[in-house]
Amino acid sequence: MIQVNRLEKIKNTVSELVTKLKKGDRFALAKALTIIESSKANDRVKAVEIIDKCWQNNIDSWRLGITGPPGVGKSTFIDRFGMHALEKDHKLAVLTIDPSSTISFGSILGDKTRMENISNNQNVFIRPSPNQSKLGGIQERTSEAIILCEAAGFDLIIVETVGVGQSEIEVRKLVDCMAMLLLPNAGDELQGIKRGVMELADIFVVHKAEEANLTLVNQAIKQLQNVIHIQRRTSNSWIPKVMKISSLENLGLDNFYITLNKYFNDIKISNIKIDLRLKQYEFQINTYVKNMISEHYRESINSKLLGLNSNILSGKNSPLTIANQLFKDAISK
Amino acid sequence: MIQVNRLEKIKNTVSELVTKLKKGDRFALAKALTIIESSKANDRVKAVEIIDKCWQNNIDSWRLGITGPPGVGKSTFIDRFGMHALEKDHKLAVLTIDPSSTISFGSILGDKTRMENISNNQNVFIRPSPNQSKLGGIQERTSEAIILCEAAGFDLIIVETVGVGQSEIEVRKLVDCMAMLLLPNAGDELQGIKRGVMELADIFVVHKAEEANLTLVNQAIKQLQNVIHIQRRTSNSWIPKVMKISSLENLGLDNFYITLNKYFNDIKISNIKIDLRLKQYEFQINTYVKNMISEHYRESINSKLLGLNSNILSGKNSPLTIANQLFKDAISK
Repeated sequence: MIQVNRLEKIKNTVSELVTKLKKGDRFALAKALTIIESSKANDRVKAVEIIDKCWQNNIDSWRLGITGPPGVGKSTFIDRFGMHALEKDHKLAVLTIDPSSTISFGSILGDKTRMENISNNQNVFIRPSPNQSKLGGIQERTSEAIILCEAAGFDLIIVETVGVGQSEIEVRKLVDCMAMLLLPNAGDELQGIKRGVMELADIFVVHKAEEANLTLVNQAIKQLQNVIHIQRRTSNSWIPKVMKISSLENLGLDNFYITLNKYFNDIKISNIKIDLRLKQYEFQINTYVKNMISEHYRESINSKLLGLNSNILSGKNSPLTIANQLFKDAISK
Repeated sequence: MIQVNRLEKIKNTVSELVTKLKKGDRFALAKALTIIESSKANDRVKAVEIIDKCWQNNIDSWRLGITGPPGVGKSTFIDRFGMHALEKDHKLAVLTIDPSSTISFGSILGDKTRMENISNNQNVFIRPSPNQSKLGGIQERTSEAIILCEAAGFDLIIVETVGVGQSEIEVRKLVDCMAMLLLPNAGDELQGIKRGVMELADIFVVHKAEEANLTLVNQAIKQLQNVIHIQRRTSNSWIPKVMKISSLENLGLDNFYITLNKYFNDIKISNIKIDLRLKQYEFQINTYVKNMISEHYRESINSKLLGLNSNILSGKNSPLTIANQLFKDAISK
């Protein structure tokens, strides 16, 4: 009976929280996200309830990934573009993904400080990446955060990630549209952007396109257009757009909004958006199941592994041989 | 009988290849690595044979991770430091990890071109990262590549990775020692190095420490020493070293070798190295088993998922609910 009462109590607390959240209460949203990021057993029970209650297949929202190398000005871009989006009556949620901890080298520099224009607006919600020590993978938490933000009425969800490889590939699986910011010296190999990553982008933004940089900017645009010309697009029929933007001088941000609007209309009309969403949910489900299964076997495998240390050290069995044995033991039960 | 003959033939081919490999034949090593990276069923059978035959717990090798932001000069550093190591009679293998594809934006820029001094030396083996489309995770392939390189007599294995978060965390689990290269403007947040990543390094190198940069270099060293002073070390008792190096002007590379030598001696004498290796193999085994189990359930889960698309689109079941159901179905069999 105690167990049932406890569960009842959790359900009531969650119900209240979700009701507030669905009214657009940003504090309730923040609290719900903290519960979802927590690894405490009690919070996990709540998290499942919260996600279930918030779940809807909201096909009208815009899920936008923003990526680019460090120093390209992603935060400034989101801050200034966010102001434009607010004028168009969007409600904006910004989720940042940081593969490492959220504390910068030597100083604590919160995302809210980095986005000074939008951070105090009541139609904006900014949430930094949960740190490594929190539960589960960053994708799972971000997928869930998207669901919760949309339930709270946010219709433009920006997922910001530091861009050098793996993280963009993961983020691409969570969003409908990917915008990649590049510096005017785009041809420079220092930029570290690789072709595999280029193929993920729907919109390329040559950022910091201040008047003074225009020669470099136009070169970069030409180079990007050449790359797009030769690269294959597998995901959909949209041909990637290249544009120049100066967030500082407020140049090109309106054009970015128009392009985004066109993109989201195009993919909706052609039913590509439904496919994109299905793929997002399939990816999410597969990640969940993978982790559930691996968690299910974790303890028994770890305890067996402990007994095999001497076999490893003596060079008797290779890690692959041992893994094969542990795998067979696990599934034969 | 055909099956047995085929397996017999594979075993013979593999035997020949591994015999050559163990004699230090770099072509045999390259061929073996190509087999290991391949996703063809035939090659997978060979791969298991190869890894098993090459496996040894070689406690004397040096496994060194090199990381740092794009543009810090990792390739040049490895090239010049590699020359020093060769003078000390090491045999050097360089494995590069690139989370995206290995083809640079706009141009194909091989690793061998980037390391011009060492690339033609017969005691050096350079292997770029397999691309995304190849089988399995980058860690698995890199762990296996380390085993094969050591079997071929390479005693200094450098694993190079582009540094912005996740990839260093993975590489840290594959190597005994991690060196992080930083630019002289280390305090600059553009560098994008976060505290979580800083904690992974055993040696910090302020790179591009040319005579002309000395003021900046010394500032960076001071900042780094302050960070090290306050940060906790969990992995071992070694206090991270900070040093300045100019690969271009050949300054500090000998000091780096001396430090590395001391580090590897220290961890060997104190038995920390055995622990590190055990952890590396445990991580490797866990990754293998996780992937084997997930592969085992993949097909049945995917086919069931296909039938649930309508439930997702109608908003009836959240991805988490569906995942829970698929998980229960999978393990109940």
